[in-house]
Amino acid sequence: MYQALGEKHWIIPDGFIPPDSSGNLTSHESVCVLNTSSEEAMLLFTVFFEDREPLENMMFVVPARRTKHIRTSALHKGGTGIPVGVPYAIEVRSDIPVVVQYSRLDSTQAENALMSTMAFPIK
Amino acid sequence: MYQALGEKHWIIPDGFIPPDSSGNLTSHESVCVLNTSSEEAMLLFTVFFEDREPLENMMFVVPARRTKHIRTSALHKGGTGIPVGVPYAIEVRSDIPVVVQYSRLDSTQAENALMSTMAFPIK
Amino acid sequence: MYQALGEKHWIIPDGFIPPDSSGNLTSHESVCVLNTSSEEAMLLFTVFFEDREPLENMMFVVPARRTKHIRTSALHKGGTGIPVGVPYAIEVRSDIPVVVQYSRLDSTQAENALMSTMAFPIK
Amino acid sequence: MYQALGEKHWIIPDGFIPPDSSGNLTSHESVCVLNTSSEEAMLLFTVFFEDREPLENMMFVVPARRTKHIRTSALHKGGTGIPVGVPYAIEVRSDIPVVVQYSRLDSTQAENALMSTMAFPIK
Repeated sequence: MYQALGEKHWIIPDGFIPPDSSGNLTSHESVCVLNTSSEEAMLLFTVFFEDREPLENMMFVVPARRTKHIRTSALHKGGTGIPVGVPYAIEVRSDIPVVVQYSRLDSTQAENALMSTMAFPIK
Repeated sequence: MYQALGEKHWIIPDGFIPPDSSGNLTSHESVCVLNTSSEEAMLLFTVFFEDREPLENMMFVVPARRTKHIRTSALHKGGTGIPVGVPYAIEVRSDIPVVVQYSRLDSTQAENALMSTMAFPIK
Repeated sequence: MYQALGEKHWIIPDGFIPPDSSGNLTSHESVCVLNTSSEEAMLLFTVFFEDREPLENMMFVVPARRTKHIRTSALHKGGTGIPVGVPYAIEVRSDIPVVVQYSRLDSTQAENALMSTMAFPIK
Repeated sequence: MYQALGEKHWIIPDGFIPPDSSGNLTSHESVCVLNTSSEEAMLLFTVFFEDREPLENMMFVVPARRTKHIRTSALHKGGTGIPVGVPYAIEVRSDIPVVVQYSRLDSTQAENALMSTMAFPIK
């Protein structure tokens, strides 16, 4: 049996899906999750906005001993996803400890820009 | 009632508002704050410089269950804001726990550059 | 005798070796390790994927009072390395405390993009 | 009297001074330090390499209630500085608590690339 490592609750305040792409790659964000354990991890994403109610409890599963690099544009609840070009923030809860990192590729202009940070763990 | 998550006191040592922009986007910094709680968060920003007195206690409110991506160029005290092109540092205090991330978009040249990091929590 | 500083166990969820390069520099990732102590540090890397079994326990030595900026493309086990263009995650274990930072240079397009973050320490 | 905030000991594993610049800005690294206290902070920098002895105890002072964004190319000991184009790592010790962030601007190619991370605190 492999042990679950990390924390069950993570926060990413700076979410933003760039509305435009140019060049060879598409602008996108990834929430990268590692589940080191022998059990699958059930994740719940809640997304907060500047001027409207949160989008709560979007589900995502990370299998045992696997990573998932989750595109935020893939998160949906009842047909509603995260709008592009709007500032938002992400809360990730997991039923077992995992580690969460956030990265953004911005190809608004012909050349790419990258940023990345560990999510903030809530203990 | 939703719980406040994070810390009440955060530090960002590397502040800098790029003086120039080119291309489609304007150079800017964002201090991204998430307030997960059912109460509004009252923030106080103090800005430190290399060679002059700090600019203290600039106020900003983040409503309940909302995020705000605050442009540092929007912070003012008595008509005085943060000058562009000058190295500075940021202290954020909040009356309830929040999570703070700092990001910079530099479009000094035609193509964009991005950087981001969680602020450092003081416990 | 110099003291070992940091932690023995680190996680980096967002690994990705860009398949393409253009311009003057080659796309690559570095796992940067500092060993401040008077003894050498023996590292074991395990790499996790989205859809296949992990590549476990690839060894790397960081000498006493030295840093190593390890290209992920240099990690191998029995002739098998990390494939390019595939999302993965990294676990680093060390027999003595070290500090680990992850950086990526992406030169898929003519101009470079950079990202960096401290790895997440498991205590 | 203002309180000193942060930690007295910080590590940055990924140091690298890009040897080339093009475009309008010069490639450089900054070690950004905030001293919130009413006393000055005395810093000692030690730099570690991959294949040679460390450069130890380079001094730098950060005045009371000030930030300093220190170019690594400005650090010297007995006329010896950090060579360009060589991987290295940084240890920062301070006599009072401070907060340390590391940023790099790479203008090897015409357009800029940026990266930033908090240094890792040793407690």
